[in-house]
Amino acid sequence: MNNFQVKLAARPKGMVQKSDFSFERNPRPEAGPGQVLVKILYASLDPAMRGWMNEGDTYIPAIRLGDVVRAGIVGKVISSQHPDFPVGTYITGPLGIQEYAVSDGRNITKINPALAPLSNFLGILGIAGLTAYFAFLGVGKPQAGETVVVSGAAGAVGTVVGQLALLKGCRVVGIAGGPDKCAHLVQNLGFDAAIDYKNEDLSARLKETCPQGVDIYFDNVGGEILDTTLLHVNQKARIVACGAISQYNSTQPYGLKNYFVIITKRVRLEGMIVIDYARQYGEGILQMAQWMQEGKLKTYEHIDQGIEGFYETFMRLFTGDKLGKLILQIAEEE
Amino acid sequence: MNNFQVKLAARPKGMVQKSDFSFERNPRPEAGPGQVLVKILYASLDPAMRGWMNEGDTYIPAIRLGDVVRAGIVGKVISSQHPDFPVGTYITGPLGIQEYAVSDGRNITKINPALAPLSNFLGILGIAGLTAYFAFLGVGKPQAGETVVVSGAAGAVGTVVGQLALLKGCRVVGIAGGPDKCAHLVQNLGFDAAIDYKNEDLSARLKETCPQGVDIYFDNVGGEILDTTLLHVNQKARIVACGAISQYNSTQPYGLKNYFVIITKRVRLEGMIVIDYARQYGEGILQMAQWMQEGKLKTYEHIDQGIEGFYETFMRLFTGDKLGKLILQIAEEE
Repeated sequence: MNNFQVKLAARPKGMVQKSDFSFERNPRPEAGPGQVLVKILYASLDPAMRGWMNEGDTYIPAIRLGDVVRAGIVGKVISSQHPDFPVGTYITGPLGIQEYAVSDGRNITKINPALAPLSNFLGILGIAGLTAYFAFLGVGKPQAGETVVVSGAAGAVGTVVGQLALLKGCRVVGIAGGPDKCAHLVQNLGFDAAIDYKNEDLSARLKETCPQGVDIYFDNVGGEILDTTLLHVNQKARIVACGAISQYNSTQPYGLKNYFVIITKRVRLEGMIVIDYARQYGEGILQMAQWMQEGKLKTYEHIDQGIEGFYETFMRLFTGDKLGKLILQIAEEE
Repeated sequence: MNNFQVKLAARPKGMVQKSDFSFERNPRPEAGPGQVLVKILYASLDPAMRGWMNEGDTYIPAIRLGDVVRAGIVGKVISSQHPDFPVGTYITGPLGIQEYAVSDGRNITKINPALAPLSNFLGILGIAGLTAYFAFLGVGKPQAGETVVVSGAAGAVGTVVGQLALLKGCRVVGIAGGPDKCAHLVQNLGFDAAIDYKNEDLSARLKETCPQGVDIYFDNVGGEILDTTLLHVNQKARIVACGAISQYNSTQPYGLKNYFVIITKRVRLEGMIVIDYARQYGEGILQMAQWMQEGKLKTYEHIDQGIEGFYETFMRLFTGDKLGKLILQIAEEE
């Protein structure tokens, strides 16, 4: 049997190109002693993957040239020589963009399919949701009545941050690209306001939608939007530095000009990587699953089908042509 | 009797010019009911004053055009209609660049001349020392064995930060301009190393002098030095954003390019203004005076004499032509 795999063929320069990947049909691996064979059902496509494609290790090693493109997946164990993962077990782990993968059990975690639809474990109950949960609650430390601004607001992390802020009694303003996303945030997710940075004057709209100033800015995009929002923060504001998607394909990084505000307003700007919270993932998943069951948290996913279309789907992260968590379905659930 | 005063005549554009100030001889004021007349002995010249000269209020109101240039001073009460401040009391407060000032007592604080030389209350026991004390200990949270880098290291704040870091068992590397300052830091103040940013390759020298990476960066200068140092910080590093003297006279702010490190290294970058700690000043002064008496803290001051030379002395902040806390002596102690 075959195993369709997407590998990193070249390190992208600037915007990723299709030629940076190779699409290969290789023999399907088999589980050896102590191993399991996983059939991959869904893969999570995330901005962080772009960083892993660059040369140089960051918080985790770079993807090596010729390796399968690393991605979080949900899959099912279809053959097992590992006592903890019998056949039929659903798991999640960074097994990459391929149809089948072998694991020795150390990089996979069992998931409970009764809690939520399987794809949710790549979004609101996966890395994106957990990032929002630990970064916003742990680093942002929201208080009821505060004003929270979140960028990349219609994305996988942003939608959860906004809903958590509402849940904590904050006023929530989302920054997103395009009127459809903005309408979605206000109408479907209950945000107090949304700003279309592609078509509106961000600074004027921040002034208008945040009459009390900004207490927490949850930054998923970096660059100019961060720089502009800095001019609207209150004293003792917290900025959660969670992502910088505006910069990931940039060969000329944006120079942040309004740094001085950090001093004059005594701002705390703090970076966050969710893997630091790995030991608390279980607690976060249970809490968010409960809020979902109570109707306090909603999730939206954009699911494209077919591993062959990996590149086209991945590009949606940068063109913004998607709503909610971006997921690639690699096989049908059985 | 006359009162020589230095007033803000124009808002500086870029580097301050002498013509931005007016030098006036006006009648000496008198203390009315509930007031004291203070003879000013020493004035503190600080980088923050440059910010107050710009239009627009920051953490405190801008200096108004035509007002005496705001500065912290040490003075002596020479006539009093206020029960808390009898004649002969030594006080400190933001009474500005002039020979005499009237106060209703609300903006002045008594000092104890037995604790240290009077000028010290404008430096190590004044705003600069208190800034170092609360910012480094409170925001930086040093642990023994950590590596601390401080910029503007030979300045009023920097020298205290470095010594506090040594006192806490840290490895201390100072960044300063010129070989004389660097020698001073290592030979007189006990820094483990000093980097002459004007004549050495900062990045190469940071690598060399901080083999374990940087755990705390205490930033007094902002701009390119901050940007370069960001590339050398460890995971969970703390950056205390205390000043940005490299930017104060700049009409084109430096664009910070290495912002991304804040995310990947989970850096906490936090701004600090000492007035937030006003209620704890007394405690800080006593602790530092004790360390000075025990020989654990040293202070160096550059004292120029004569209010007429205010502009030339103030410029030393930006040319770097001084060692330690910059003070203008306005009258002889009696």
